[in-house]
Amino acid sequence: MVRLKCIINYDGSQFSGFQIQPKKRTVQGALETALTKMHKGEYIRIQASGRTDTGVHAKGQTIHFDSAYDIPLYNWKQALNTLLPNDLYVKEVEYADDSFHARYDVIEKEYRYYVWHESEPDVFKRNYAYYFPYELDIRSIQAACDYLEGTHDFTTFSSAKATTKGTKERTLYQVSCEKKGSEIEFIFRGSGFLYNMVRIIVGVLLDIGQGRRQPADIMDLLAKRDRRLVGETVPSEGLYLWNVRYDEKR
Amino acid sequence: MVRLKCIINYDGSQFSGFQIQPKKRTVQGALETALTKMHKGEYIRIQASGRTDTGVHAKGQTIHFDSAYDIPLYNWKQALNTLLPNDLYVKEVEYADDSFHARYDVIEKEYRYYVWHESEPDVFKRNYAYYFPYELDIRSIQAACDYLEGTHDFTTFSSAKATTKGTKERTLYQVSCEKKGSEIEFIFRGSGFLYNMVRIIVGVLLDIGQGRRQPADIMDLLAKRDRRLVGETVPSEGLYLWNVRYDEKR
Repeated sequence: MVRLKCIINYDGSQFSGFQIQPKKRTVQGALETALTKMHKGEYIRIQASGRTDTGVHAKGQTIHFDSAYDIPLYNWKQALNTLLPNDLYVKEVEYADDSFHARYDVIEKEYRYYVWHESEPDVFKRNYAYYFPYELDIRSIQAACDYLEGTHDFTTFSSAKATTKGTKERTLYQVSCEKKGSEIEFIFRGSGFLYNMVRIIVGVLLDIGQGRRQPADIMDLLAKRDRRLVGETVPSEGLYLWNVRYDEKR
Repeated sequence: MVRLKCIINYDGSQFSGFQIQPKKRTVQGALETALTKMHKGEYIRIQASGRTDTGVHAKGQTIHFDSAYDIPLYNWKQALNTLLPNDLYVKEVEYADDSFHARYDVIEKEYRYYVWHESEPDVFKRNYAYYFPYELDIRSIQAACDYLEGTHDFTTFSSAKATTKGTKERTLYQVSCEKKGSEIEFIFRGSGFLYNMVRIIVGVLLDIGQGRRQPADIMDLLAKRDRRLVGETVPSEGLYLWNVRYDEKR
């Protein structure tokens, strides 16, 4: 038995999210169908670094699974990509330690969020960035990003529906915002993220960019730990699970 | 009665081409449905600069139609975009002369073709560029492009299924190829294009880039006027109707 770790990409626009659901097209469903076919009907269960919602994309989602097959890594990659639909791609396959776990061993995740910041929408961007035509003060947003970095209780910035037990304290190593041509790129690197956390934070950052709040309000919002104080979750099409890091020593 | 001219964009990946067909999702169908709804059920017929096949995109498709409505141009644009699906967008609406015709009055069309030139596919490019992982000599392709410019009989480079009557002579004002990061951009500007002409030419140019033909072979291929001499039509996902020009004096 070997444990395999894979880095996968997917265009989330045609998937009903990551997690398997009856009669829905999901990333987990597509991966397990391909693996089960490769294993002649034996059900192969995968574990991912975490779920992603409907419409959310991934550049560096990471999964693991166990197999009795002893085949070269390159052939694993080839075989899987041949069986997968073309909006899901296995970028890397490697052997992992038997104790490796794609979810429990995460030490850092990076998410990015893209905003299409033009006066008119672009049909080619509709599934890949959030169309936001209003004026924004990027410097204010950047100032607010600085307040978000560090270790905080992010209750205010997580879905009220969240089922997470235990602490809502997380550490953000990087929160940044940059205008790149017609797009605005937000980068979030952190120890972990609560449900909807990136999309709720981006909503608040866009409020700040419009002058509806001040950058320093972030401190107050964090301290109050109340989801009702902030606005709507921005749409899923702008969100990308960009990278997942594990302890290299393992 | 006014005649309106519109410039429209569409992501062709979810359309069964431009031309209306029963039970299929087409660009013409979506536009006529929106216009007919605006006109309280009165059927409004549109005319386009030409058709595009399934999967082909447009940045500057041009259409015209007649309406008894007298409403400001900005409201036309707003109303149409509100009624259209989000993979189809009206970029400009203007008044046209009663004698203007979106197909008959074309003086120049520009098509572009994009190749995703990397060793691995990109899930986010799958519908928007042709994945071609093989080595290419761009300079050879550019030399071949020069042979294509000018006035020629393009029988060799048009679909054998073409129903075009009359001459297969067309004038290409620009044929160019440039490597831009991970993509190769082909630009074709001409007086008109035969059915599948751009996609057949790109196939031959990729053969030349791989050294399977020489740039000067283009002259011989043009002279022989035989579709069977050249290879397969490249896929539709890389093709964009980029711009349509009309006589400005009209």
